[in-house]
Amino acid sequence: MNLKQLSKELNLSISTISKALRDSAEISIATKKKVQEKAKELNYHANPFASNLRNQKSNTIAVIIPAIANNFFSSAINGAESFAQEKDYHVLIYQTHEALEKEISVSKHLQNGRVDGIMISLSSETSDTSHLAALKDKGIPLVFFDRVAENIDAPKITVDDYESSYIGTEHLIKNGCTKIAFLSISNVLSISNNRKRGYLDALKAHNLIEDERYIVDCNYDETANKLKIKNLLTSANKPNGLFASVEELAISTYEICNEINLNIPLDLKIVSFSNLQTASLLNPSLTTITQPAYEIGREAASVLFKLIENKEIDPTSQNIELKSKLIIRDSSTAKTVNNIASTKKDLAQILLG
Amino acid sequence: MNLKQLSKELNLSISTISKALRDSAEISIATKKKVQEKAKELNYHANPFASNLRNQKSNTIAVIIPAIANNFFSSAINGAESFAQEKDYHVLIYQTHEALEKEISVSKHLQNGRVDGIMISLSSETSDTSHLAALKDKGIPLVFFDRVAENIDAPKITVDDYESSYIGTEHLIKNGCTKIAFLSISNVLSISNNRKRGYLDALKAHNLIEDERYIVDCNYDETANKLKIKNLLTSANKPNGLFASVEELAISTYEICNEINLNIPLDLKIVSFSNLQTASLLNPSLTTITQPAYEIGREAASVLFKLIENKEIDPTSQNIELKSKLIIRDSSTAKTVNNIASTKKDLAQILLG
Repeated sequence: MNLKQLSKELNLSISTISKALRDSAEISIATKKKVQEKAKELNYHANPFASNLRNQKSNTIAVIIPAIANNFFSSAINGAESFAQEKDYHVLIYQTHEALEKEISVSKHLQNGRVDGIMISLSSETSDTSHLAALKDKGIPLVFFDRVAENIDAPKITVDDYESSYIGTEHLIKNGCTKIAFLSISNVLSISNNRKRGYLDALKAHNLIEDERYIVDCNYDETANKLKIKNLLTSANKPNGLFASVEELAISTYEICNEINLNIPLDLKIVSFSNLQTASLLNPSLTTITQPAYEIGREAASVLFKLIENKEIDPTSQNIELKSKLIIRDSSTAKTVNNIASTKKDLAQILLG
Repeated sequence: MNLKQLSKELNLSISTISKALRDSAEISIATKKKVQEKAKELNYHANPFASNLRNQKSNTIAVIIPAIANNFFSSAINGAESFAQEKDYHVLIYQTHEALEKEISVSKHLQNGRVDGIMISLSSETSDTSHLAALKDKGIPLVFFDRVAENIDAPKITVDDYESSYIGTEHLIKNGCTKIAFLSISNVLSISNNRKRGYLDALKAHNLIEDERYIVDCNYDETANKLKIKNLLTSANKPNGLFASVEELAISTYEICNEINLNIPLDLKIVSFSNLQTASLLNPSLTTITQPAYEIGREAASVLFKLIENKEIDPTSQNIELKSKLIIRDSSTAKTVNNIASTKKDLAQILLG
């Protein structure tokens, strides 16, 4: 079914049909209705590329993220999709796998009107952001979320990274930790630096000395990270508290503690930024700083549609900061007596056969 | 920078430049190189819609999945992307959120050449697959993976669902379970039915009686599922073994067991299909049937590119079945004495201050 056949079927010119399908003001409402109903009945779909050339609309937004295998980003995308769906838009998801090169390649791919707007959270390698400035210069609406480019004049949806790191570190101190390690993930991202600042300021406020040996720069190489964590936890002056700036590092720490027989929380108390669904089921359950990931995605999409619908908006007026939540569980507290009591019951049960 | 400016810059006709950029055989290699280098230098990108109209290539494939917040699907996508990247293709990810309606909407969106090929894993609601048959009729290369449509003549990349369910159920029987529940996720998907058949045949082979009360039909409504699981585990004749056909149901079961104080594995032994990264860190660690998710995605992409590059291939000759793996951990075995011993050590440590 093409325009020509549709024209024959309706006994209207191709130009009239084309305008009716584009909802042009030149065509009467009655005719538009007639054309649209017939098109639907005959299952006619415009060639999207031809139709995009004319009306310059793709009804699609792109979300660029470091990785989908991450509870924070998958929830953020679900939030963005919930909003896009209300606008009858499709969402294209692109992964950069934490690689600047891939982020540049995706940006180039999106430079010429494939999508009406872009939401992005930077890769951990991204310090030079000229590829994103180029997108903005082309007039493509752009919104940053979570991992933002400070130097680009576009809306930024963030969370209180500094404050929640401060609170998480203070929680470890209040639970008796005197030597607290910080596992960082990237030296170039502003969120990573904000998290480290929160940690350092909490130490200072409680008269604990900053010790370079306890600040471990990790990346997304799991094997290399585990080696660094193992070295840290087997060193002579090992920490008794640990703050993980992303959940992957908390999981690696659990695995290392199992391997070297270190008890969490007796030997090491742990707090981690995390949206892990199974945090409460881990052994022991993990204390987390949990971000409102779904809401961040939804807010970012909401601001993006404001830009798409009104390009005159001042982007910096659209910055939003949301709040994280410290959820205290067994990994950071000494309250393990209950667990042991229930295990004693189990033991009794075994002994009784 | 447009074609006209590029033409002026190079002192070549627009037609020559356009052909050179499309790698046409009519143009000499030397000229092509000159044009491509200048285009790169001046950062010229073809309008993708105009260029797609000419060469009918999008250099993009779509992957349609039920949800990205799922370790199996996120790994499968990573496998597909690894292959697409080698072909210099982009991957668009679409979520159906387990809804047939959304799957139909995405299929319509993709009907007119936006992508060169599609990989899909069905929503749990999809029994009528006419929207997918329509894609195939339009000549769009289509490959199914994991959750396949049996009645459509397209390549299917699957795993040994029947065999691994049989083995998982048998493992529970060998560990002393006599009353084994099966949590199913969909009555319409073939993989779900294959998993149930494996469970039933293992019961039969070991002279255990099939009991309708132990077969619980769940869906993707977490609250409703938990209620069903709670009813099952608090009933008079409650099971002592449980086989979860997807990992979400195992997680819900853990949560219910915590709530009603049922000990895993002493009161209930559990095996689940799962690619959960934290399976070994759960309390207790979870016995899983783990699928080669990354490989499934990569195989599916590999077959899809065969179809894209050679439309004459017989699709049914491309079916592939991969093998899952039973990974035995504490949730299904009685070996908890070690855990308790180490907890006794902790207890002593607490008592000693």
